Amino acid sequence: MGQTSGQTASGQAVEARTRRALERYVRAWAENDRDAFLDVFAEDAEWIDPVGTPPYRGREQIARFWDDAHASGATFEPTVHRIVACGDEGLLVFRMIVRDPGGGGMALEACDVMQVGEDGRIRSGKAYWDHGCVTRL
Amino acid sequence: MGQTSGQTASGQAVEARTRRALERYVRAWAENDRDAFLDVFAEDAEWIDPVGTPPYRGREQIARFWDDAHASGATFEPTVHRIVACGDEGLLVFRMIVRDPGGGGMALEACDVMQVGEDGRIRSGKAYWDHGCVTRL
Repeated sequence: MGQTSGQTASGQAVEARTRRALERYVRAWAENDRDAFLDVFAEDAEWIDPVGTPPYRGREQIARFWDDAHASGATFEPTVHRIVACGDEGLLVFRMIVRDPGGGGMALEACDVMQVGEDGRIRSGKAYWDHGCVTRL
Repeated sequence: MGQTSGQTASGQAVEARTRRALERYVRAWAENDRDAFLDVFAEDAEWIDPVGTPPYRGREQIARFWDDAHASGATFEPTVHRIVACGDEGLLVFRMIVRDPGGGGMALEACDVMQVGEDGRIRSGKAYWDHGCVTRL
């Protein structure tokens, strides 16, 4: 529990970049914007959701992740509890409400850990949640 | 947002082991038990707190982390919000109340990500928090 890295001007710039990437990620979900979502990830990014399952490697596979999530017509409403910037790594603590088109759905309490590159795009992301994080609506 | 890995008997056993390690970690803080704290970590574990600062490598350096944290006579009261088990990785969402011996202190909202080995010990751990997670008491 030492000092944080955001105590120099360059450290603050990196952390602002990290924070912006996570905000863009959330906004893409909130606005149901597939192009914006894919643009947040580096071309060769790796995405794991949830941790313990196989990774999606590269923007093409991450597009498949997005399309699978939306295939049923479900809608997504993220609410951010906290965004934490630790150098080029960021933590997103949020609730995702997933509404099924026929009614019902679920609330998911999740934490995503992201590593953000110098271009401001996510290089790797990991979503932590398990069955205890899910409430049926 | 696919299936979790805890859906097979072996997956459930791994996730129970992950969860136990994080529970032991919290208990060591709550009971101010240095030996128990060090025993939760593998001999060659790596610990980063907060992410963005240099790692503590190996149990000897992790002992120094503990000793530095306690050098002022501060006491630590963890409250767990959530423990998430994703295969051999775990997420600990918690509040740490740090009380200074002369009065005052801080409340820290933190998320720790841990990887747990087959021996049930933490192989690597990373604590995510920044200045926005700290409230002075």
